[in-house]
Amino acid sequence: MEHAPTCGITDVVSVKTQVYDLVKERGLESRYVGGHPMAGTSQSGWDNSQRGLFAGAAWAVTYDYALEVEKLPQSWIDLFADVVRLAAMAKAEAMPVRVAPHDEAVARVSHLPHVIAESLAVVGDHGGILSQSLAAGSFKDATRVAGTRPELVQQMCETNSAAVVKALDEFLNYVTAARDALASDNPTIADLAEAGYAARTRLEARTGARKESVSPVKISSRPVLRLSPGSHGWVSQLRQAESMGGRIEVF
Amino acid sequence: MEHAPTCGITDVVSVKTQVYDLVKERGLESRYVGGHPMAGTSQSGWDNSQRGLFAGAAWAVTYDYALEVEKLPQSWIDLFADVVRLAAMAKAEAMPVRVAPHDEAVARVSHLPHVIAESLAVVGDHGGILSQSLAAGSFKDATRVAGTRPELVQQMCETNSAAVVKALDEFLNYVTAARDALASDNPTIADLAEAGYAARTRLEARTGARKESVSPVKISSRPVLRLSPGSHGWVSQLRQAESMGGRIEVF
Repeated sequence: MEHAPTCGITDVVSVKTQVYDLVKERGLESRYVGGHPMAGTSQSGWDNSQRGLFAGAAWAVTYDYALEVEKLPQSWIDLFADVVRLAAMAKAEAMPVRVAPHDEAVARVSHLPHVIAESLAVVGDHGGILSQSLAAGSFKDATRVAGTRPELVQQMCETNSAAVVKALDEFLNYVTAARDALASDNPTIADLAEAGYAARTRLEARTGARKESVSPVKISSRPVLRLSPGSHGWVSQLRQAESMGGRIEVF
Repeated sequence: MEHAPTCGITDVVSVKTQVYDLVKERGLESRYVGGHPMAGTSQSGWDNSQRGLFAGAAWAVTYDYALEVEKLPQSWIDLFADVVRLAAMAKAEAMPVRVAPHDEAVARVSHLPHVIAESLAVVGDHGGILSQSLAAGSFKDATRVAGTRPELVQQMCETNSAAVVKALDEFLNYVTAARDALASDNPTIADLAEAGYAARTRLEARTGARKESVSPVKISSRPVLRLSPGSHGWVSQLRQAESMGGRIEVF
């Protein structure tokens, strides 16, 4: 901070509230725009580098500061535009999002899947060698991220524990209801199977390449908003993009 | 049955106890060897046919009848060999397993993942459009099988409900313990993260191609037992193969 007193700051970690609290503790919020590329594999280290990892991935860009001050300094506006351009250079899609909604969303769609994958991996392992030998795609895909280094899982889940616990409680409600329905005299899983299928179908419609398309190019289904940072009403446009899970491009 | 009174019977469904009960009700056990290829995608219908679907997959072959009678009819022995050859023709790996251990194992490594995927898909969907837009590999892989037609999930889980409930209870114990540890004053997920990582690593060692190998050919890590159906001690060999999650080839 003392050696680069005007330099902007961004980051790429999975939980944004704690980072932003630390930034504010140090009075650096006018120099900070948080980032979180939603891409990665369960492999760690240089050997597992890969080209194209970020192509088409969401890259969350935080902008809470823009709502906290009366007049935004030009340096922050420039930094925001730079972080969006950084995401674009990596072929990712910049999505504006405030830190709190970001952390709630990733608790649901990233940290929760990690906790589930770990638990499922353990239960499968307890089935012994026969279960391991019979395990096929459903089990392997569902436990893939259990291969993530335990320290990373700890960092993600422990620094976002309140949101993760909330997502876990919701998940436990569904699984417990399914368990009870299956344990009844007339075992059924109809409700959950219908609801899960509908939810997954919506996700595919939102994120997949269109199957009927003749083009092999995967077209982003995130709506795009082009904006000029600092222009009249641009912060409202960020709010709008966030509310529709949209991406932004800067002029 | 009346039109083909000597024809052998096999099947390819995911739960074997109920099928075997129906076979026994009709007194057809001397003509039945159950099968279950552990392969598939979440897509259904002819449009989603694919070559090589069964390559390297486990194909469970049941043999309870061999333990239930004093003297096995030659016709059953021949049928057993035919079912093993059928699996081999599809490039799958025949694994002998009795119906009860089979159903317990698939409850753990196949039906449980389906229930989890459905539940996670619903919880992610509740996060709304922002969660859907931020969802990346961990969420997509973990919910993939929620795209399976709900009727199929019902058939699997409802006909194997006792074993599925047992697997669900075990899974719920781990997730609930993790939830409570994360909700404590010093949020932690260390124990589960370590256990899940270790379990997944064992699975990869068991099923993956060896990473250090220069050959692109994925070598099966299931031990192979070659046997001659009907020869002295061959049923003990089936038990042995089952206990080590092994595959069999017939002379």
